[in-house]
Amino acid sequence: MAGSNDEVLDRTGGKYVEPGGEFTRDQRYIATRITADARDGWPVEPGRYRLAVSRACPWANRLIIVRRLLGLEDAISMAVAGPTHDKRSWTFDLDPGGRDPVLGIERLADAYFARFPGYERGITVPALVDVPTGQVVTNDYAQMSLDLSTEWTAHHRPGAPQLYPEPLRAEIDEVNAKVFADVNNGVYRCGFAGSQEAYERAYHRLFDRLDWLSERLAGQRYLVGDTITEADVRLFTTLVRFDPVYHGHFKCNRQKLSEMPVLWAYARDLFQTPGFGDTIDFDHIKRHYYEVHRDINPTGIVPLGPDLSNWLTPHDREDLGGRPFGDGTPPPPPTPDERVDPAHTPLP
Amino acid sequence: MAGSNDEVLDRTGGKYVEPGGEFTRDQRYIATRITADARDGWPVEPGRYRLAVSRACPWANRLIIVRRLLGLEDAISMAVAGPTHDKRSWTFDLDPGGRDPVLGIERLADAYFARFPGYERGITVPALVDVPTGQVVTNDYAQMSLDLSTEWTAHHRPGAPQLYPEPLRAEIDEVNAKVFADVNNGVYRCGFAGSQEAYERAYHRLFDRLDWLSERLAGQRYLVGDTITEADVRLFTTLVRFDPVYHGHFKCNRQKLSEMPVLWAYARDLFQTPGFGDTIDFDHIKRHYYEVHRDINPTGIVPLGPDLSNWLTPHDREDLGGRPFGDGTPPPPPTPDERVDPAHTPLP
Repeated sequence: MAGSNDEVLDRTGGKYVEPGGEFTRDQRYIATRITADARDGWPVEPGRYRLAVSRACPWANRLIIVRRLLGLEDAISMAVAGPTHDKRSWTFDLDPGGRDPVLGIERLADAYFARFPGYERGITVPALVDVPTGQVVTNDYAQMSLDLSTEWTAHHRPGAPQLYPEPLRAEIDEVNAKVFADVNNGVYRCGFAGSQEAYERAYHRLFDRLDWLSERLAGQRYLVGDTITEADVRLFTTLVRFDPVYHGHFKCNRQKLSEMPVLWAYARDLFQTPGFGDTIDFDHIKRHYYEVHRDINPTGIVPLGPDLSNWLTPHDREDLGGRPFGDGTPPPPPTPDERVDPAHTPLP
Repeated sequence: MAGSNDEVLDRTGGKYVEPGGEFTRDQRYIATRITADARDGWPVEPGRYRLAVSRACPWANRLIIVRRLLGLEDAISMAVAGPTHDKRSWTFDLDPGGRDPVLGIERLADAYFARFPGYERGITVPALVDVPTGQVVTNDYAQMSLDLSTEWTAHHRPGAPQLYPEPLRAEIDEVNAKVFADVNNGVYRCGFAGSQEAYERAYHRLFDRLDWLSERLAGQRYLVGDTITEADVRLFTTLVRFDPVYHGHFKCNRQKLSEMPVLWAYARDLFQTPGFGDTIDFDHIKRHYYEVHRDINPTGIVPLGPDLSNWLTPHDREDLGGRPFGDGTPPPPPTPDERVDPAHTPLP
């Protein structure tokens, strides 16, 4: 993904905290789009692109979930980088020989350099790579997930849900903007704050927004409308990391997620929904944050806690009604090659 | 206190973690005792000694509690150092002019040097200082608290409890040894571990012991016998720091204390007992750990959470019976000059 998070910060020597100041996310991404009409020169075409992700990264996690929900696994293959990275790049160290078997590269940076020699901004996941040329096409994660919904419709599975339905777009956009500023990016603003004041501002914004979300979700099952949308995907990927990482590592510790009853039930509901929990690798998530951010965790020691088996407890959100997939159906289980190691995550 | 905790580590340049290894507490203290028979040359004598503490420090906290429970405030005065310290010494930076008004020193180290010029071991709290000579007499916190119970009996308040009663000493000692190794010191072994393996060993020892304590305390109100003893004091000072500090800062995060029902009720019962909660300064506690241990918290940022108002919720431990003060009575409220700033700690 992006900014000081899962971006690889070669320019700053692996430092994430801005001493004395606020964390500011570099939001300049490669804005090229892959569209049905190929307006940027890159057409929707099944089998042509490879989605580079790390399961650790919340921004990449959005794409993994959306691809699963929409059934785009056959149309867009996936390259999974390891949870940690060096100063230069995410690496394919989970693959035999440390090399992505399709792209044939060891480091995601190579796909960026193939398109932009000397590329200086962050080498981020998620990224869509053009397999024939080995060039990265886009790393603009927010647009990418919307485009999977709206541009790749011809290749959706039968029963795929509407994650970004026309009549709800304005409301989804509005919720997403709040959630991005105060929650998705807000946890990083807490964790990478360079001063007590910057931290405290971010903390209050975060928990004020979580309180607002708790109120909103107390009486409705999903964030917008009565089905799962893009808005739920974006909130989920932060909530699922809250107790294992953000609570301690980023000092987001007014409460644990598990101590905020509405959000906790909402998050478990999604976790237990096909396409959400089955994309989560808690081992990768914890290792990424605690091993990579040495300027806030110099020892690199990864906590053993918390106990995560509570993600499978009943959530009782069905009582609120809602139709998770609208007129559609849940996705089938992940294919064996994309299944998360069961030792890493409690799954039903 | 001691070791790498509240000791001032001038020898190691302010580093607490032993890279690659286990945290080992330096347990060499000044073993001189103040006794009724003056066998070491230092007689029990009211008004002669000053107890140097920091409210941040769990080892000093024991002495503050025992002194309160036994009503020794008039016999032994108290010098309160600030929550943080420099590389050389705890300092009296809370006092006007940054100088303890009785000892006339700015730094606790001066009392150590007055007795042992060039003293090289840790400058620790708690310490008992001989006011006439300005010399530290002892910093052996474990023996000190027992001696307040057993050597200062002539100066206890009427109604003072028996914290170390003869018939229970063997059992108290046995419990204390387990609690020291796995809990009191165990949290530091988690937090200052220099390798993943050392951390994991300490974590399992800690939580195994907390499970053992939960079982023991499920059916009895106090650790040994049916009244408060030294064993409860020693466990309490670690438990009260668990959620504000050890859970996040030291990665003791299987659960929060507030998620371990028996221990959480036990800790609240004690917190709400006169002489316990009224000695706690959560602001000093949090600032100490997060500001001083820069090798595990380089930014020095102090978390705003957790919400600590839950310490005042009902604990229902009275149902287990028990007589907190045995045949004695609770201590009166702290004198105004020893009252903790109400903005720092929720108190009844």
